[in-house]
Amino acid sequence: MKILVLNSGSSSLKYQLFDMPNESPVCSGLVDRIGLENATLTHKVFIHGSEEVFKFQKDIKDHEAGLLAVTALLIDPEKGVLSDMSEVKAIGHRVVHGGEQFASTTLITDEVKKIIKELFALAPLHNPPNLLGITVAERVFPIAKQVAVFDTAFHQSMPPRAYRSAIPKEMYTQLGIRSYGFHGSSHQYVSRKANEYLNIPEPKIITIHLGNGSSMTAIKNGKSIDHSMGLGPLGGLVMGTRCGDIDPSIIFHLIHERGYTSKEVNDILNKKSGLLGLCGYSDMRDVKQAILDGNEDAKLAYELYAYRIQKYIGTFSAALNGLDAIVFTAGIGENDTEMRAAVCQDMEFFGVHLDQEKNSTRSAEIREINIPGSKVKILVVPTNEELEIGKQTFELVKG
Amino acid sequence: MKILVLNSGSSSLKYQLFDMPNESPVCSGLVDRIGLENATLTHKVFIHGSEEVFKFQKDIKDHEAGLLAVTALLIDPEKGVLSDMSEVKAIGHRVVHGGEQFASTTLITDEVKKIIKELFALAPLHNPPNLLGITVAERVFPIAKQVAVFDTAFHQSMPPRAYRSAIPKEMYTQLGIRSYGFHGSSHQYVSRKANEYLNIPEPKIITIHLGNGSSMTAIKNGKSIDHSMGLGPLGGLVMGTRCGDIDPSIIFHLIHERGYTSKEVNDILNKKSGLLGLCGYSDMRDVKQAILDGNEDAKLAYELYAYRIQKYIGTFSAALNGLDAIVFTAGIGENDTEMRAAVCQDMEFFGVHLDQEKNSTRSAEIREINIPGSKVKILVVPTNEELEIGKQTFELVKG
Repeated sequence: MKILVLNSGSSSLKYQLFDMPNESPVCSGLVDRIGLENATLTHKVFIHGSEEVFKFQKDIKDHEAGLLAVTALLIDPEKGVLSDMSEVKAIGHRVVHGGEQFASTTLITDEVKKIIKELFALAPLHNPPNLLGITVAERVFPIAKQVAVFDTAFHQSMPPRAYRSAIPKEMYTQLGIRSYGFHGSSHQYVSRKANEYLNIPEPKIITIHLGNGSSMTAIKNGKSIDHSMGLGPLGGLVMGTRCGDIDPSIIFHLIHERGYTSKEVNDILNKKSGLLGLCGYSDMRDVKQAILDGNEDAKLAYELYAYRIQKYIGTFSAALNGLDAIVFTAGIGENDTEMRAAVCQDMEFFGVHLDQEKNSTRSAEIREINIPGSKVKILVVPTNEELEIGKQTFELVKG
Repeated sequence: MKILVLNSGSSSLKYQLFDMPNESPVCSGLVDRIGLENATLTHKVFIHGSEEVFKFQKDIKDHEAGLLAVTALLIDPEKGVLSDMSEVKAIGHRVVHGGEQFASTTLITDEVKKIIKELFALAPLHNPPNLLGITVAERVFPIAKQVAVFDTAFHQSMPPRAYRSAIPKEMYTQLGIRSYGFHGSSHQYVSRKANEYLNIPEPKIITIHLGNGSSMTAIKNGKSIDHSMGLGPLGGLVMGTRCGDIDPSIIFHLIHERGYTSKEVNDILNKKSGLLGLCGYSDMRDVKQAILDGNEDAKLAYELYAYRIQKYIGTFSAALNGLDAIVFTAGIGENDTEMRAAVCQDMEFFGVHLDQEKNSTRSAEIREINIPGSKVKILVVPTNEELEIGKQTFELVKG
């Protein structure tokens, strides 16, 4: 069965086609700069372990035109991978915010769309384009089943003590203000892989997703019980341009004592903070090069980034009252050997003991990089959010 | 040698007189509602283990009038404790914010006063009345040495990775925005007591100050290396009316999506959040009564309060890469048996094992409340910020 996974942004459309249940990717791609000048369509076809890449520049006036261009490619007599669009039995849509209404993957109905719309206030940047992607897909693929996979769903298992903030109760009951969590598909995907690998009863693990955005989750027996992000994707770990955790006093100090507007502060904390704010580079590879060049600010940025992760390992070990494994994933987590070493350094108290050599070995597979005696397993698990969305979609529709 | 300790607030003046070096309190008191109707002066004299309390209502137009009223009491032929004001050799002033300029207790000079004034922007509610108290004391006690004991000084040993935030560097270098920490005199006092009690090399301890304001400190070998509060006293633990740690997205969501002004949000997070926001009661004793009455909100507030402390024990265990003792202090920490039990529950992973019976025994002395085999000692250490200020003042001037 072919499952198409769609991730619809404000001016982009990411897609990946899977053959299920064997989980093999057929093709993937990105329509970028929709509605802007120089829109592009990048399309990759996977055949026998190798990939063929096609790039197009064309006029794509809206998401519907984008998705039609993609479908034309899918059934193209030459480059195509499908004989007929009806081969796509279901489309799995990434939807960022499912509020408290969705704790699992859901078949899309008018009622579901209505709720996704009601949640615009909680995810003003993400839910509107996600919903647009859904309505466009319904027109372009009228026979396929449409499925919503929510980033927040995995974290709905958090208990109130983890998701509530110590603010007036009415802000929760009337405005829905609480922690919802993010990167749910990634944390769910790698935690399932890690738990299969560990094969122990009631595993207590911490997943560390380090990419453009970064977050950590405390996972007890497969369920998220606490998470580093909250209502929005700004808090928690230090990120490329986002501040992560910050004393709220700083925000009010900047507004009330230093003459910033709240919009300026929001902009600074989202786009000019994190690694970029500390040292001028938002890309971890640039930060590392700067360290080699003797840049002290970059050194501090790297140190602070690692320290924040260590502190969350401590925080979540308390939440779990135990720790069987820590799991590194996403761009930085999978590839930055030095960052993993910095995070695992001086963590013997927790039973974390890194094997430097195993840490340096690269692989696209799940791997264990602790020394044999380490009480805590240290795992690197490549994430695959698209596959997770595809799998959950398949599970829902296969019956 | 007599040392007077002064804590000057916007409309109050707290004082305590010590006889040094034997550390015995001679008298203490509070001038309240200065400049307002119905100002009061409460004065306690300590004699042979018992105390005599005097209360006055009188017109006290400003801090100078307040301090003069106190000195009149000190040398009163009947109730007085001094034959002459010149017996007061030094006055130790509590000053909330010493910025990065003061890492220790300091003799007050014109230059010191100038810096305290420069720090008004960082502590707009506290440093102005603290400085006022100093200038008044200089006039009323022209011969005594004036000494500043800064709340922030103890935390100046924090490394950059702990005190810097991931925001633009210039906000630190140009505006001084960083974590300074609070309750320094209390954390210092109880950590010294705890370390004397532990008597081990390089102790790693976490001090938990739970009062009206609450904060925790990671202390390695007597030095603060990380702390739960930041630029202001709003973040970290859940407090009576303060929110503690909060996802910064919530602040911007309230302002930009829900129509609050930044001043309203600041006000809510400082005065209407914490326990009060969660359940309607800011005093922990009321929260506990409400729990007994079956109030579910109060139950959650209590749980969240304890959980946040547990998470910080984890956080700071990572910062310390170890844990020899946790130290409870201040009103709630010293007196709330159930809260200590809630914090120590499900913390076996850290080696924390509470002895329920010892936990229930009351005492005004330092006491150990863990079971004999507990890897981590659990201590209750009554705090005494005034005595700490008095001791530091004495140490500075005795030479």
